[in-house]
Amino acid sequence: MTTTTPNAIASVLSDLVGLDIITDATQVAKLSHDYYHFSPVLQPQLQDKFGDAVVRPVNEAEVLKIAQACVRHKVPLTVRGAGTGNYGQCIPLEGGVILDITKMTAVKWMKPGAVRVEAGAKLAALDKQTREIGWEIRMAPSTYRTATIGGFIGGGSGGIGSVTYGQLRDRGNLLAVRVVTMEDEPRILELRGDDVYKVAHAYGTNGIITELEIPLAPAYPWSEIIVNFPDFMSAARFGQALSDADGMIKKLVCICPDPIPQYFAALKSYIPAGKHAALLMISETCLEPLAEFVKEFSGEITYQKPAQEAGKGIALAEYTWNHTTLHARSVDPTITYLQTLFPDDKNLSLLEEMYHHYGDEVMFHLEFLRYGGKARPASLQLVRYTTEERLNDIIRDHESKGAFIFNPHTYLIEDGGMKMVDLAQLQFKEQVDPYGLLNPGKMRAWLERS
Amino acid sequence: MTTTTPNAIASVLSDLVGLDIITDATQVAKLSHDYYHFSPVLQPQLQDKFGDAVVRPVNEAEVLKIAQACVRHKVPLTVRGAGTGNYGQCIPLEGGVILDITKMTAVKWMKPGAVRVEAGAKLAALDKQTREIGWEIRMAPSTYRTATIGGFIGGGSGGIGSVTYGQLRDRGNLLAVRVVTMEDEPRILELRGDDVYKVAHAYGTNGIITELEIPLAPAYPWSEIIVNFPDFMSAARFGQALSDADGMIKKLVCICPDPIPQYFAALKSYIPAGKHAALLMISETCLEPLAEFVKEFSGEITYQKPAQEAGKGIALAEYTWNHTTLHARSVDPTITYLQTLFPDDKNLSLLEEMYHHYGDEVMFHLEFLRYGGKARPASLQLVRYTTEERLNDIIRDHESKGAFIFNPHTYLIEDGGMKMVDLAQLQFKEQVDPYGLLNPGKMRAWLERS
Repeated sequence: MTTTTPNAIASVLSDLVGLDIITDATQVAKLSHDYYHFSPVLQPQLQDKFGDAVVRPVNEAEVLKIAQACVRHKVPLTVRGAGTGNYGQCIPLEGGVILDITKMTAVKWMKPGAVRVEAGAKLAALDKQTREIGWEIRMAPSTYRTATIGGFIGGGSGGIGSVTYGQLRDRGNLLAVRVVTMEDEPRILELRGDDVYKVAHAYGTNGIITELEIPLAPAYPWSEIIVNFPDFMSAARFGQALSDADGMIKKLVCICPDPIPQYFAALKSYIPAGKHAALLMISETCLEPLAEFVKEFSGEITYQKPAQEAGKGIALAEYTWNHTTLHARSVDPTITYLQTLFPDDKNLSLLEEMYHHYGDEVMFHLEFLRYGGKARPASLQLVRYTTEERLNDIIRDHESKGAFIFNPHTYLIEDGGMKMVDLAQLQFKEQVDPYGLLNPGKMRAWLERS
Repeated sequence: MTTTTPNAIASVLSDLVGLDIITDATQVAKLSHDYYHFSPVLQPQLQDKFGDAVVRPVNEAEVLKIAQACVRHKVPLTVRGAGTGNYGQCIPLEGGVILDITKMTAVKWMKPGAVRVEAGAKLAALDKQTREIGWEIRMAPSTYRTATIGGFIGGGSGGIGSVTYGQLRDRGNLLAVRVVTMEDEPRILELRGDDVYKVAHAYGTNGIITELEIPLAPAYPWSEIIVNFPDFMSAARFGQALSDADGMIKKLVCICPDPIPQYFAALKSYIPAGKHAALLMISETCLEPLAEFVKEFSGEITYQKPAQEAGKGIALAEYTWNHTTLHARSVDPTITYLQTLFPDDKNLSLLEEMYHHYGDEVMFHLEFLRYGGKARPASLQLVRYTTEERLNDIIRDHESKGAFIFNPHTYLIEDGGMKMVDLAQLQFKEQVDPYGLLNPGKMRAWLERS
């Protein structure tokens, strides 16, 4: 445990005079939290965790200053983007300084296929700029309007676009990261190649990401489409077939079984009760072959927004990924969720078994994504929460049957997806954050190192 | 059998006065053949098959006229592109008229993601036009400089680009086809959606393709790269890993085991004897992550041509797919080849077994391609030919072990890849070519219909 005394905080802040500092308790409290309340397990663990002050640097020189001050006075520093994470990634467990990166948004350069940008750029704003040259970011969470690229790389794993480009951790999806260290004399390091994985998805525990180089995807003319199906497994098989179709250009293949669409106020008129819906983003050039898939699986297209209306009216993507959970919880706050990758099972049999087994308790919202070169259904199941014990039983049941759970009910990096220590991340932390000041308490390997 | 009498031919030609007609025997002979001589089995079967005259229409109206004349006089009509096929697809078995489509090359329109073009456009020339708006054709055979789009759709199945976009027959890779029929009153039909498969890969047996609508891919800045490996299986596993990497943008992943590279005069200095080479086309934005794959599999990059030099010097693609066979045969004309899809085998074990089993007799040149959503190694094995019996033994051995052979030693559509009758193609032929005049003798289903 670090000790964050009022004196130490005061010393840090006095070192940082002239920077944009927030100490108002209400604002600091707001900027200490994220969407961890999706988890009834994390809720009691994190609700009373707050930083002592927020600093908002406008450039890397200021980031260096902040790092220097925190190291000098041994005050914890927790980096924050837009706070759209769900696992308390950016909630400071031991108080200290919150470094809010959202004022650093400059695009350093862009070219066909890649962009270099500061960590605080919002994904939608970045997309707007790169689309001017015909390109867009490869993948984004459903919170793309507010989420930052630094936060996404630091705490996310994939999203809209993953049905084509896989996960953030797949080689090629992150080209370079620039980080400020927390050594006695903080340094600026550029990590490239596989070295980027030393800090990617490390929740800011081993470096302050200030700048990133990410690949871009061609900005196809995306059409947004809803297809209804009479039964869940037809919708799921349609999703798998479409995701497996190498000739079909797609950005989103989301399946929402009944009754989930009934939580979507704005979409209800397109998805009657009892229907199971696919929410899709497909290149307009592929609409005719899409119609053949729809026919093959007995679906019915009930909504179609042409690409030229993108940005107007309903954004279908904002009903998918964890926005599905958000909409459900806005109607029924007792609902929580899980994150599951189903095995590479040719006929979706395990999914079918689980769907029937759990009935109304676990609603198998599916997001298709590519994983290791193959499209597979991931589920962000909506779970009607009763007790933590029952939730853990459900998790164990999934795991025993061969489904892989990325547990969203823990703030420890390793206990979420990896289930094992990432030695490279630990060693990098030992090197660049010798006092363990960066986002303390989140890396199990650090806590348990001998 | 149709009967092509000199009188009938004369009548057809007299109906076509004013069109570009070739009757010079040498030229007609040349325009009757393709690269069937890659197959020592097809060689004796096809070497004496020639058309009686070649007609080269400049527009669809002329195609209609030719169709009309051939139907009126019951003369066979065989459509020809550049004649770069390898199975005698365009060799007229019963003489008659050869319709050479190469003068019809107009681009009707193009837009981001799609182009509409006449069937005789050469692939490279088409690419040159679409690249002006930042797009290119999704896949092409290694003969892209001379091959026509109509010939590729009529007789090809995939190629350079298939590692990303799969096969031509995959939904989304062919949007529309316009065909002229051979009924008493020839008609013009537009086929869209799944209807395109009525005529795709039908060798021109059931309609004269005059125009096509095909999807386009983003024109990434392709870098051409040679990587050497100390052993074949490292090269093969590298190829599989790179092909499975969803974050890596690639157009070509070709593996040429030793001694195949020694047949490539222009590449020898980059691939010493004893080395197994990967020939790659990778987006320049992915070169740093590529280096990590190379390191992981103990490879060494010995050649790298930047994208800005595309079109100058060596074109690596022209050493891959069936150009590999071409180069080998130019040194040793006794070499022939097979076409094999290996099963979705996680550790390439069958490939390894076959590689060791056959030694020098079968050289497992690999082309990775996406098949049903998953990258798999296809092999265009070079085979040291001895007898047809031995070749058939090799084929049967592959099939018995679970490898799928697309036999290039037959001119029958069904006996190549499909192994079964395509009822939709047969029914379409019954409808639009009731006299069986289009490329007679190539569709087994038609020959054997009751």
